[in-house]
Amino acid sequence: MELYVERGFEQTTVAEIARRAGLTERTFFRHYADKREVLFWGAGALQELIVKTLASAPDSAAPIDAVAAALEAAGALIQEGGDRPRKRQDVIAANAELQERELIKMATLASAIAGALRERGVPDPAASLAAEAGIAVFRVAFERWINDPAQGDLPAVIRQSLDELKAVTAGS
Amino acid sequence: MELYVERGFEQTTVAEIARRAGLTERTFFRHYADKREVLFWGAGALQELIVKTLASAPDSAAPIDAVAAALEAAGALIQEGGDRPRKRQDVIAANAELQERELIKMATLASAIAGALRERGVPDPAASLAAEAGIAVFRVAFERWINDPAQGDLPAVIRQSLDELKAVTAGS
Repeated sequence: MELYVERGFEQTTVAEIARRAGLTERTFFRHYADKREVLFWGAGALQELIVKTLASAPDSAAPIDAVAAALEAAGALIQEGGDRPRKRQDVIAANAELQERELIKMATLASAIAGALRERGVPDPAASLAAEAGIAVFRVAFERWINDPAQGDLPAVIRQSLDELKAVTAGS
Repeated sequence: MELYVERGFEQTTVAEIARRAGLTERTFFRHYADKREVLFWGAGALQELIVKTLASAPDSAAPIDAVAAALEAAGALIQEGGDRPRKRQDVIAANAELQERELIKMATLASAIAGALRERGVPDPAASLAAEAGIAVFRVAFERWINDPAQGDLPAVIRQSLDELKAVTAGS
């Protein structure tokens, strides 16, 4: 990560990353499929947290509110990373291939959320729509949070963005 | 397109596509950056139609309704393609790289819609949220329409999906 910020993603080799981390290249490839994956290793843990939070939401929770609560939990985990998420986003923003991988991870997350909602007995298309709407809220909130370093509280920005989506879809 | 359906995307060469279309390879590459682009040549026209429809929506239209009307116009254009959109989707569904390109086109479309809303004086984050919500509706509606060949009217499915999103975000 530090190397990507210092030199740019394209210019950094796996050999350099492994050396900085005190690993052999062989060990590196046991952990990561390629050098891009270093930037996305947290995606699996985030998705797991989101799906688990969704599964444990009270039965009475409306799908969109259960999704929002799960995304707020993810937001809390992300902001524990201090300045790492913002540095990471700088690296991703500068590279089209990384942006594509980010899009894929978000699409995978949307499918996982829709699946978790179906497990809760939410029928389609409500499950898919609540999942996609949740991802839309998360995406917009995350961008606002990234672009405003004074903004500390990501879960609060997510909550606020959901309220704004509710106003937008109500046609106001 | 026919070749992709007959043989699979990976197995089809540019030489074969050009021959079938009565073009030289050189002419092919004047029109398309690569063989994937054959499947996405319509994306530019769709985006143009959506942005134009948005720009000409009445001032009184709520952002989400202006977006929905533009997506319905796009839906009408898509279904003029007869069975082409469904064949195209089969090819895309079978290839990870094509799915990625589809995700990128959707993200580009979301940015274009948000931009067109800002032109109409819609502030952020409402512009981004209405655009992302619109794309969510479109994605879900398109998938329902693709998977149900008996379903003829894509604009109607889009309208119905928007109503369902409104219900979902209202927390019902």
